[in-house]
Amino acid sequence: MNKLEQQLAFIQELDRLKAIYRKAKVKADQNRYENSAEHSWHITLMAQVLQPYAADTVNIGRVVSMLLLHDIVEIDAGDTFAFADQALLDAQESKELEAANRIFGLLPQSQYIAFKTLWLEFEAATSEDARFAKAMDRMLPLVQNMQNNGGSWQENNVKRSQALARNYYLKDAAPTLWQYACEQIDLATKNGWLIDE
Amino acid sequence: MNKLEQQLAFIQELDRLKAIYRKAKVKADQNRYENSAEHSWHITLMAQVLQPYAADTVNIGRVVSMLLLHDIVEIDAGDTFAFADQALLDAQESKELEAANRIFGLLPQSQYIAFKTLWLEFEAATSEDARFAKAMDRMLPLVQNMQNNGGSWQENNVKRSQALARNYYLKDAAPTLWQYACEQIDLATKNGWLIDE
Repeated sequence: MNKLEQQLAFIQELDRLKAIYRKAKVKADQNRYENSAEHSWHITLMAQVLQPYAADTVNIGRVVSMLLLHDIVEIDAGDTFAFADQALLDAQESKELEAANRIFGLLPQSQYIAFKTLWLEFEAATSEDARFAKAMDRMLPLVQNMQNNGGSWQENNVKRSQALARNYYLKDAAPTLWQYACEQIDLATKNGWLIDE
Repeated sequence: MNKLEQQLAFIQELDRLKAIYRKAKVKADQNRYENSAEHSWHITLMAQVLQPYAADTVNIGRVVSMLLLHDIVEIDAGDTFAFADQALLDAQESKELEAANRIFGLLPQSQYIAFKTLWLEFEAATSEDARFAKAMDRMLPLVQNMQNNGGSWQENNVKRSQALARNYYLKDAAPTLWQYACEQIDLATKNGWLIDE
């Protein structure tokens, strides 16, 4: 295959992310489950809108690229609920690495390396860009759950402490948003949408 | 409302794009119709992958931003099939402008202006960035239709000349991709997926 054929094979493969369903629901569309492709679009735009709250050193172009590709591995590995038990989350990690090799591996070598490196950076959350990207990925479900009477928190008996831990990336990545998230988690607890253990 | 509340209102409103269905189908998900949110994700990533074929002066960051927001107006205006008749397409234009005012208008003033300006630039296709973005928006359905035995072309009796005209932005924006598109359109015509009038 020439380079363009490799790139088109990757682009065609992406279609499959539209068949990976998450625990969040789309209230605007008869409360069906949300898929990872539309979720990826939503958080990428969210990152652009909330960029003013990020630390100055965040490069929004890199954040956007990370968010566009962060879930592609789910095509092979599936979506694991954020509050699943640790053994399940650990098993997911090695499945996702295999998936990254196969799916990004459809691309020509230089793009394969660029995409996989960016994905690994996101996963490791070792850079400020990755931490802001992670913070966005975690804050959107909070916004959706608040919009949806507790949503996936309520349906899966999530605890207040779990929701707080999940959003902890916000604390340094975007302090104003962290304060907002804490207030919303308090409100959700008061409403009985999160378990206050 | 303070700025963050305005931004969150916009982010929540975006959920509704997941309920706007297009004529393309998702083969990987039981051949259901594709929605405009997942489509927006797909073409944005496609633009990043096919960026090497764009003219040197294209700013991929601006292209990405345009593609992320180009369909948001459909929340109010709905999706009009690319090959609908001209009167319908003209009526769509004024509905979309109203939609842009309302939906981008949820944002704080400076973001409202930035987003609406970018959307108008995309619509007018007067810049190289906008023309490359448009070319991506038009090339993906071609890739999907070829993957899907003619797909929406076949189902809606689209003519070869219409498919060619639709992809014409590629000619200057990315000549290698234009050549590819022409070959695919010839093949589709040979397969009976496009009408050769």
